[in-house]
Amino acid sequence: MFCGAQLSLYPMTDRFVDIILQAIEVFKHTDGIRLETDDLSTCVIGTPKKVFEVAQGLFQPAAVTGVHVVLNALFSRGCPGEPDDPICTPCTPDKPATEADLIDLSTLPSTGIPVSAQYSLYPLGAENYMEHIYQQIDEAKKEGTYGGGKHFATRLEGDLGKVFATLYNAFTRTSLVAGHVVVHATLSANSPSRKKNEK
Amino acid sequence: MFCGAQLSLYPMTDRFVDIILQAIEVFKHTDGIRLETDDLSTCVIGTPKKVFEVAQGLFQPAAVTGVHVVLNALFSRGCPGEPDDPICTPCTPDKPATEADLIDLSTLPSTGIPVSAQYSLYPLGAENYMEHIYQQIDEAKKEGTYGGGKHFATRLEGDLGKVFATLYNAFTRTSLVAGHVVVHATLSANSPSRKKNEK
Repeated sequence: MFCGAQLSLYPMTDRFVDIILQAIEVFKHTDGIRLETDDLSTCVIGTPKKVFEVAQGLFQPAAVTGVHVVLNALFSRGCPGEPDDPICTPCTPDKPATEADLIDLSTLPSTGIPVSAQYSLYPLGAENYMEHIYQQIDEAKKEGTYGGGKHFATRLEGDLGKVFATLYNAFTRTSLVAGHVVVHATLSANSPSRKKNEK
Repeated sequence: MFCGAQLSLYPMTDRFVDIILQAIEVFKHTDGIRLETDDLSTCVIGTPKKVFEVAQGLFQPAAVTGVHVVLNALFSRGCPGEPDDPICTPCTPDKPATEADLIDLSTLPSTGIPVSAQYSLYPLGAENYMEHIYQQIDEAKKEGTYGGGKHFATRLEGDLGKVFATLYNAFTRTSLVAGHVVVHATLSANSPSRKKNEK
C-alpha cells in the first residue's frame, strides 16, 4: 500500500535556508525511501516506519539548534489514485498493521527536547470516522502525550520522541479500521510564545 | 453550522515575533469573529467568508514585507462535536451554500503578490469522497490557479487573492455534497527555492 508524507520545516530565523538544506541533505542517500523536494515541501515515500523516521530526523536536528522551528507534516497511507510503489510493499492491504507495529512509549529514550504539537486525524470514506478519532484521543491520554483539545485538532505535549510515537501509533492503529488514513501534524520547538495553560 | 480555521504564520526571519503579532493585532477587535491564539496557531470562528478573509488578511501584509513567509491553514465546517456558535448561524445546514456564495475569480482585482500553495480537501464521512476531490481539481483548472498534482495534495499557483478564492470555492462547493468538510492549505510567498517546473 502506498504510504508517504509531505514535510515542511520552518526555522524562524534569517538562516532558514541553511537549516532546511542541511536537514534534507542527511536523507538524500537513505535506502528504502524516495525523496522529492520542491519550494513547498519534501515528499517522502516509504513504509510508515521509515516515513516517520525521516520526519523526526528532519525536525530533531533543527530543534537542537535552539531556533524556533516548526515542522508541518501530512502523513498519508492507502490513498486511492496514488501509484503503488515497490518500497511501500511491506505494508500491503493483505498485511495490515498489527499491535507489534506499535511503539511502546514507556521504552523510548528521552530526546531531551520538549515540543508542543497539534494534529488532526482523517479516516477517509468511513461513516463512523469520529469514533476512530475519539479512540486515538483516548490512546494519547494513556500514552501521556495528550495536551488538551482544540477546535478541529488535538494538542500533544512532551518529549519530541514520544510525540512522534503517539502520531505514528494513531496513524498505524487507524489503518486497522480504515483503508485511507491521513494525519496532519504541526510540531513546534523553542517557541517564545506562552502555551495557553501556562501562567 | 460551526465553521472556523486554525491559522499559523511562519515568517522565516529573526523578526518573526513582530510580524506575527502585528498580523494578529489587526483582527483582535473585528466584529463577527472569535479569535483564540496559543503557541501553535490562531483559531478563528465565524462564517466561511469571514474566516477566509481573516486568513488572507493575516498572510497578505506579511507577504508584502518581502520576507519568505508561509501560512498554514486548517479550514473546517460542520465538524460533529464542535459547539454551535451564534456567529456561525448564517451557514446553518438548512441554509446551505449556493452558487451565489462562490467567488468569480475573473472579477477579482490583483493583489500583485504571486504565491505558491498546496492543499488537501477532505469531505468526511462520504464514501464517494475521491469524486468530490477530483471535481475541485477540475474547478481549479477552470479558475486558472491549478499548478499540478503532488502526492497527497494539489498545487495552486497565481495571484494571492485568486489562490485564496480557489480554496474558498473548493471548501464552499464541497459543503453542498458533504456535511463535514476540511481543507488543509499551505501558502508560500517570497520563497528563494525554485519551483519544480522552473528551469
